[in-house]
Amino acid sequence: MQYYVDGFRGGDPDKKNATNTRRDRGEFAPLPEKVDVLIAGCGPAGLCLAAQLSHFPEIDTMIVDPMPGPLEKGKADGINTRTMEMFQAFGFADKVKRESYWVNQTNFWMPNPENPAHIKRIGRVQDVTDDSSEMPHILINQARVHELFLDDMNQSPTRLTPDYSWSVVDLEVDTTATDYPVTVILENTGINAGERKVVRANYVVGCDGARSAVRTAIGGKLHGDAAHQAWGVMDILANTDFPDIRQKCLVTSAHEGNVLILPREGGYLFRMYVELDKLNADERVANRNFTVDHLIAGANRIMQPYSLDVKEVVWWSIYEIGHRMTDRFDDVPEGESGRRNPRVFTAGDACHTHSPKAGQGMNVSMQDTFNLGWKLVHVLQGRASADLLHSYSSERWTEAKRLVETDHEWARIMSAPVGESTLDNGDEPRFMQQFKANLEFTGGLAVKYDSSSLVGTPTYQALASGEEIGRRFHSAPVVRLADAKQMQLGHVAEADTRWRIYAFAGKNDSSSPGSAIHQLADWLQHDPRSPVLTFTAEDEDIDGLIDLRAVFQQTFDELAYEEMPSLLRPTKGKLGLQDHEKVFCVDHKGLGDIYDMRGIDREQGCMIVVRPDQYIAHVLPLDAYDALTAFFAGIYLPTTQ
Amino acid sequence: MQYYVDGFRGGDPDKKNATNTRRDRGEFAPLPEKVDVLIAGCGPAGLCLAAQLSHFPEIDTMIVDPMPGPLEKGKADGINTRTMEMFQAFGFADKVKRESYWVNQTNFWMPNPENPAHIKRIGRVQDVTDDSSEMPHILINQARVHELFLDDMNQSPTRLTPDYSWSVVDLEVDTTATDYPVTVILENTGINAGERKVVRANYVVGCDGARSAVRTAIGGKLHGDAAHQAWGVMDILANTDFPDIRQKCLVTSAHEGNVLILPREGGYLFRMYVELDKLNADERVANRNFTVDHLIAGANRIMQPYSLDVKEVVWWSIYEIGHRMTDRFDDVPEGESGRRNPRVFTAGDACHTHSPKAGQGMNVSMQDTFNLGWKLVHVLQGRASADLLHSYSSERWTEAKRLVETDHEWARIMSAPVGESTLDNGDEPRFMQQFKANLEFTGGLAVKYDSSSLVGTPTYQALASGEEIGRRFHSAPVVRLADAKQMQLGHVAEADTRWRIYAFAGKNDSSSPGSAIHQLADWLQHDPRSPVLTFTAEDEDIDGLIDLRAVFQQTFDELAYEEMPSLLRPTKGKLGLQDHEKVFCVDHKGLGDIYDMRGIDREQGCMIVVRPDQYIAHVLPLDAYDALTAFFAGIYLPTTQ
Repeated sequence: MQYYVDGFRGGDPDKKNATNTRRDRGEFAPLPEKVDVLIAGCGPAGLCLAAQLSHFPEIDTMIVDPMPGPLEKGKADGINTRTMEMFQAFGFADKVKRESYWVNQTNFWMPNPENPAHIKRIGRVQDVTDDSSEMPHILINQARVHELFLDDMNQSPTRLTPDYSWSVVDLEVDTTATDYPVTVILENTGINAGERKVVRANYVVGCDGARSAVRTAIGGKLHGDAAHQAWGVMDILANTDFPDIRQKCLVTSAHEGNVLILPREGGYLFRMYVELDKLNADERVANRNFTVDHLIAGANRIMQPYSLDVKEVVWWSIYEIGHRMTDRFDDVPEGESGRRNPRVFTAGDACHTHSPKAGQGMNVSMQDTFNLGWKLVHVLQGRASADLLHSYSSERWTEAKRLVETDHEWARIMSAPVGESTLDNGDEPRFMQQFKANLEFTGGLAVKYDSSSLVGTPTYQALASGEEIGRRFHSAPVVRLADAKQMQLGHVAEADTRWRIYAFAGKNDSSSPGSAIHQLADWLQHDPRSPVLTFTAEDEDIDGLIDLRAVFQQTFDELAYEEMPSLLRPTKGKLGLQDHEKVFCVDHKGLGDIYDMRGIDREQGCMIVVRPDQYIAHVLPLDAYDALTAFFAGIYLPTTQ
Repeated sequence: MQYYVDGFRGGDPDKKNATNTRRDRGEFAPLPEKVDVLIAGCGPAGLCLAAQLSHFPEIDTMIVDPMPGPLEKGKADGINTRTMEMFQAFGFADKVKRESYWVNQTNFWMPNPENPAHIKRIGRVQDVTDDSSEMPHILINQARVHELFLDDMNQSPTRLTPDYSWSVVDLEVDTTATDYPVTVILENTGINAGERKVVRANYVVGCDGARSAVRTAIGGKLHGDAAHQAWGVMDILANTDFPDIRQKCLVTSAHEGNVLILPREGGYLFRMYVELDKLNADERVANRNFTVDHLIAGANRIMQPYSLDVKEVVWWSIYEIGHRMTDRFDDVPEGESGRRNPRVFTAGDACHTHSPKAGQGMNVSMQDTFNLGWKLVHVLQGRASADLLHSYSSERWTEAKRLVETDHEWARIMSAPVGESTLDNGDEPRFMQQFKANLEFTGGLAVKYDSSSLVGTPTYQALASGEEIGRRFHSAPVVRLADAKQMQLGHVAEADTRWRIYAFAGKNDSSSPGSAIHQLADWLQHDPRSPVLTFTAEDEDIDGLIDLRAVFQQTFDELAYEEMPSLLRPTKGKLGLQDHEKVFCVDHKGLGDIYDMRGIDREQGCMIVVRPDQYIAHVLPLDAYDALTAFFAGIYLPTTQ
């Protein structure tokens, strides 16, 4: 963790120095008339975006929510490994790791063939495959995730906080205007309920859930399957003689349906999803008088011979599975993307809904806005043309589509009668097979963006076979040269909207002048065609947009730090202090060699270009200067130097 | 991390529910007239004790400091692995690991034989030996350590905060009184400077530094060597061409003296200790007009051919090495320990001073009060007789003595002219040899308490050859049975004043009824002679004083959780919820087998009794019930059942 670059300041380093241009947020202060970004909804999607934007004082961000304050309990609870990698970039992964339940194993229970009225454990699956991520799959209540983002916002230079008790009810986009073209109507839902205010925005992001007013305002409709299977969910403090209560379990009974058990943070709490009766085609769960007692009774029937002794019901809800999504995630009508750029976006449940049981909802929602955040920042900073924003809908719609389809299939398998779903293929029941096949997907690790101006073609993919273009950069252990610290290379990525270029040295390259690494660094620093020179603003650090890191095949004691090129030891900040954290070497303490682990070509080395949202944009030879020039020229506008 | 045992409550789990009996700490509220414990001084020793006591609402604790508020910069910065293990128990080790500089290597520089005016790297030493601790050796400013303890106090049930601007000036002990026998005179150092107040206390702990008024009041005097070697220390933000600036370095020049370089938190800051001229016998550093410019110039001379470009001096100081200590750390005169129990204690610099350069001061100070804290709690809770408190001075004095001697020797070697200290034994200079020999000591891992009522005799030491009685419990990787989580066994220990018994099962013992583990657990839970039955209060959880944990040789999937004895699955808290975190098994994922790593007898198993301050009190066979009974009977008073 780097800090003090602009001088010493005591206290918690996560608390950034405040900017002096903050909005008055006093009790009777007015709402702003204009903002750069208005976010509707303080769910995971909205807060993830707000947290990212809050670190940029030059961007006026407002986030509203109709609730009077933060969420207290309930809703989602699954954080997959991919989201944990993102939390690492936000700086609170360690805190989450400490507080949360870790899903290490998923156990499968089915009717005991010798006594089908009783369930029996039929198998276990390791939940996070070895080296699929350095992060655990964890469970924690959504309210706590909100709080961590709110803390991050509150510690940011802008000290951003939500405007609670305000709801977006409508908006209009003036496609002929360039400044603040979106007129948003907010309605008070608190002490002045019904009062309306108008705020004009450059961009609006609807993270306002399945009944999104933002989506409706831009003409979006959820299409798909409104399912007819009711499930109940409860978070309970309870005792039980069921031995696997602290492991994730999928339990299928012979005649009473299924439960999904998710142990939770703190060591005592757990969640159960309980299958309820099938609904009729025209029936909705609101019409049925399910209570939490139905859930508890249902769980007790399903889990025979085991039983639950519930001490406290923390939260419960009944819902039905639906798998629906909109045609696009922005306000640009089909066929008009060449003529206009998006001004309004939807994210999370506002544009795709699905079953909670694969644990994807909260994750995909945050990944939506993590994809959007850096693009908005770069457009608002004037670095990139606004047509960059088209890529949000195109990239995330494809992923949402895959999610809805995979989740639909999984829900079907989970809800299928035992006779149809079990033992289709030898001894391993179908839902266990499917669970295993889905692991990469449920980890959030299967996301792959197609080739575009933001994702290169895989001409040189063979130079880093384990780091696939379009997928997230897969971290591995390294040792930092300057201080011999063992660490994860991927953890240099912060949620700071910067690009990273990881330059892997070829064999025998120890960065002596003239070596490929040295040449690349010098070219990046000095050549007029270098994207670092072309796109970095004069008043920002040389790594302000593109952050070069080098990795060597030698161990730390075989390299000479003093020989490293100056771009790998840049001076930064108000004081011009040297940054010592750019150069890495292979781990010498047994955690593995990153070249082997990620299939990096040992002879030639390569560079891996990674987007601000941690996705791999390109794999190129170390001397592919022209390709690098062309790639960044397709995204950024030259700064006036 | 376990929470919600008394029911769900949202928010940060480190923030405990507040008690309803807190003192009014409003701006004009009076000081209390009586307290259980009065702590003088908000340094590491005082705050470590205050943090521990703050979690016990039944104990009135007051901590005063003459400063107007928390320390902002300077002073100590080294946290050794042992202290990090203690921070883990306090719950903030992860935060410190994230923010701090990790000392991975220590490098040695000496005059280049070919050009003695220039220094040259002559060797590197791995700073934390493999498997000496699961924790890193870190550097972070003392003010931040204070803040972490203050946060812990502020999140505790008592929401304890210091009374700043109050200084202990004198105290008197009435040896005939039993209630609040210590009369303490406080003097205001703030807005009402000079105002005096009297507070009566049951116990007073002087953590008030080398000029301790508490020590003086009980007649303590620092004896020893007032040294005559002046050193300067500075925390700076600076650039340099010295290639090892992000590694700890001991640099010896041919004629200009020595510097010690300590990289610091944040990636830019570092500390330098610079040797200054020898002082005359009757001279003190205050009489010399050293400035920070002398330090910078001195460092530049010593480090030739490298140079420093200082951008900001964050803090600097000049000091002279002294190695001094008092005869005892409490108020009981020699020979009177049979007649009276201590009421006043000294800790940290108040009773032992030494050079900062071995990085021990802050660590030993905190370890002092971590040793005292649980004893005070248990005496004040009425669990233990007050003669338990004699052990504080006897245990810590021996350790301080060793510290002063080791540190004295180290300072002598560090300050010795190059000609005498180098190359005494082949190619490795004497200071490098000594550094290596000291590593266990400087890690804080060499502490070993002698046999006493708190430390058993090593009759059965061979059952756990790697867990030596009297030394700290050495953690190792395990997997928790209930949720298959890979973790460190030692991390079950919290700073909660509880004892842990780690029961290691013998081969083939899977806790079936009748096995040694099962019998031990049942005996502890049900036998009238069991210390759990005898010393646990009726209104507390069954693990309120003695926390049994079991470790098995099988992997998690080979054990039946449902067969575990009830003491290993106890119900706890207001709701009577089952605790699932008592049973462990060997790691199955390659981190090592705890039986092999710690020399646990595979055939017989054993139990390791660990004190609340993480020191090993006993190693016993699993069936040594009588020894266990006798051991705890030597410390605790039976509860009236």
